[in-house]
Amino acid sequence: MSEVSTRDRLLTAALRLFSMHSFAGTSLQMIADNLGVTKAAIYHHFRTRDEILTAVVQPGLQELREVIARAEAQRSPHARIDTLLTGFVDITVRHRALIGIMGTDPGVAHALSTHPDIVELFGRPLEILSSHEPSPAGEINASLVLSGIACTASSPLLTHIDDETLREHLLSSSRRLLGLRNRHHPAPAGR
Amino acid sequence: MSEVSTRDRLLTAALRLFSMHSFAGTSLQMIADNLGVTKAAIYHHFRTRDEILTAVVQPGLQELREVIARAEAQRSPHARIDTLLTGFVDITVRHRALIGIMGTDPGVAHALSTHPDIVELFGRPLEILSSHEPSPAGEINASLVLSGIACTASSPLLTHIDDETLREHLLSSSRRLLGLRNRHHPAPAGR
Repeated sequence: MSEVSTRDRLLTAALRLFSMHSFAGTSLQMIADNLGVTKAAIYHHFRTRDEILTAVVQPGLQELREVIARAEAQRSPHARIDTLLTGFVDITVRHRALIGIMGTDPGVAHALSTHPDIVELFGRPLEILSSHEPSPAGEINASLVLSGIACTASSPLLTHIDDETLREHLLSSSRRLLGLRNRHHPAPAGR
Repeated sequence: MSEVSTRDRLLTAALRLFSMHSFAGTSLQMIADNLGVTKAAIYHHFRTRDEILTAVVQPGLQELREVIARAEAQRSPHARIDTLLTGFVDITVRHRALIGIMGTDPGVAHALSTHPDIVELFGRPLEILSSHEPSPAGEINASLVLSGIACTASSPLLTHIDDETLREHLLSSSRRLLGLRNRHHPAPAGR
């Protein structure tokens, strides 16, 4: 129990320090100092800073894998897209700080780019969203939605907007852009 | 004439090297080597790497200032938004490589953040686009469109799409998202 919670505290502190000082600007010593432990205590859990980063991003990646699997299990293109979109918005809002460093810190981007499974995973949402319309228009729409969601959720200009409001409007805007019907605008009776 | 073209060649080479090696990873010596000139020739034009970066971004910033001024001179909210949106899409497509480094290189972001006039300028498009709907929904829509346009135009996944196709679809998608009528979908007669 105490081992688990030390590891969790370490990952929380690492994400906060990466956000403040960038991945390249955060040393294992800084993480140890922030937690009030020795560097040896850090090494008990992780051998390198890259291992810490991989552990920091793991919960978000696991949620993304699950959303992709759920989306791909849907039979209709519409359900596939809507499942992916809803899950993608949920994940980005739940992990605003993490998405922020993944999108803007080249040290993070470089470290993650050395993991082929992660690179492959990051390309899947664009493939799924643009699959029903394999044209430049479909790809541009899909990219606009996905990168817009990620950048908006992590924007320093929008930190005053709470998670639930952000989630709701990101989803309805994205649905509108992709031509999907919003659930709170029911279809007229008879259709 | 030769002075002007040396300066232009220098800025083009600098942008290419910044894109490849990041701003922090590009030295004045690398720029000189790339151009086949001496470091002294670089110093004839610029004293620091920060001065080179400021000169590299200047044409795009000047175009953005002009678009903002044109938008703000419009009387109706609709014309203001459409002028801003059209100009913003034009600029991001024309400067795909530059937008790429501005959005993803923290060295660039940090260097530009020391110029208050540039920081103020970057906040204006979001203010203009969200001004007609001063609510979380309006801000989220505006951010989704602006960051989506910037990320999509500079996305390494979409380099196979030519500028004109990109421009056309970014504009029609953004207009749809903001509830603006697209020019190539004329309103029914009588409306």
